[in-house]
Amino acid sequence: MKIAIIGTGAVGKTIASKLVELSYNVMIGTRNVSEKMASTEKDLYGNPPFSEWLKSNSKVRLGSFAEAAAFGELVVNATNGGNSVTALIHAGAKNLAGKVLIDIANPLDFSNGMPPRLLPGLNNTNSLGEEIQKTFPETMVVKTLNTMWCGLMINPNLIGKGDHINFISGNSEEAKTRVKKLLNELGWPDKNIFDLGDITGARGTEALLPVWLRVNGVLKTGAFNFRIVR
Amino acid sequence: MKIAIIGTGAVGKTIASKLVELSYNVMIGTRNVSEKMASTEKDLYGNPPFSEWLKSNSKVRLGSFAEAAAFGELVVNATNGGNSVTALIHAGAKNLAGKVLIDIANPLDFSNGMPPRLLPGLNNTNSLGEEIQKTFPETMVVKTLNTMWCGLMINPNLIGKGDHINFISGNSEEAKTRVKKLLNELGWPDKNIFDLGDITGARGTEALLPVWLRVNGVLKTGAFNFRIVR
Repeated sequence: MKIAIIGTGAVGKTIASKLVELSYNVMIGTRNVSEKMASTEKDLYGNPPFSEWLKSNSKVRLGSFAEAAAFGELVVNATNGGNSVTALIHAGAKNLAGKVLIDIANPLDFSNGMPPRLLPGLNNTNSLGEEIQKTFPETMVVKTLNTMWCGLMINPNLIGKGDHINFISGNSEEAKTRVKKLLNELGWPDKNIFDLGDITGARGTEALLPVWLRVNGVLKTGAFNFRIVR
Repeated sequence: MKIAIIGTGAVGKTIASKLVELSYNVMIGTRNVSEKMASTEKDLYGNPPFSEWLKSNSKVRLGSFAEAAAFGELVVNATNGGNSVTALIHAGAKNLAGKVLIDIANPLDFSNGMPPRLLPGLNNTNSLGEEIQKTFPETMVVKTLNTMWCGLMINPNLIGKGDHINFISGNSEEAKTRVKKLLNELGWPDKNIFDLGDITGARGTEALLPVWLRVNGVLKTGAFNFRIVR
């Protein structure tokens, strides 16, 4: 199956590598392909520029937002939450129509320093997941994987024998069923995929970020997650 | 030690009973004592009226908000989050000055149905814990226990051998140390009391409610909590 990843950050690269390993055909979409390939800047975490990463992940294709969205039978939104809606508009509603879109982004607002807040208009009475669903009514948006460090998204067994929680929400049961199968392949057993219902569940999981980021600040590692104890 | 509980709901009654069992002197504060004692209404959950509960918890005293706050060497806010600041103003800044106040309330807004939102002005860029701290600068506000069902607050061993998390935040290290000792007595070992830092941590823990309430809706029980897996 062909999968498009919108966004070239740590989340996009991590998911892309893993999906290639699982034998999917993967295209990453970026705003401007030639700029992205010409950039020699390291990322925020000191990682090498994207072009170097692409060399060592040669099965991953790179295209514009629209090329990637047109290519993918399933699309993953791994952009910065503040830019997600704009990036997806560039990807094109027609290219996204009728497809499942996995939204991993969080509407974080770093403009007032750390820890970030959630973006105005995208919290409490709304969420990024809902906003994307409202903007692209013909797309089946599934919010998942957004409550953890990207290293765990593709390798839950890294901690606690993989026994911790990944939330999922979305309006389409069929889309969630498809995404759950993909999550199984990433290492998430059904018992640890917690279905919160429709896409308004994204209000809950995106609101986990303010506490996640504070716990992260105390533990000084992203390699942690929540388990539900009953 | 004398402890005041502000609020006669399920949380207030549960904490009061447990503190009496632990040999504390407890007074519950209510808006209007004679009204509260005259009421024959069952609560939202079908529990008997407060006067009946008080009969079977005869060591608990009942007073006005101000009487209770004056009585307590330590004060617990167990009011409805939407009324907390008003109730504490009635309790009196002078009666609260120089004291530790444990804030268990959550700023839930049920006006748009279930699951509730957080109250405007008390989320994302603010929190109820911070608002109380700002309103009563001479009081040492400690936010804790607000991320779980009240049955677990006083009996964490009810599930998962007690191995799950209770967050704490507050500006005063001394106040947090005192509250941690009380939490130990309630059954919370130090290893499961997670200190998020200053009172802005309340933004994180109050924001857990939108996901807590959704998980609660799926599990149909409040007897669950989160564990941090590393």
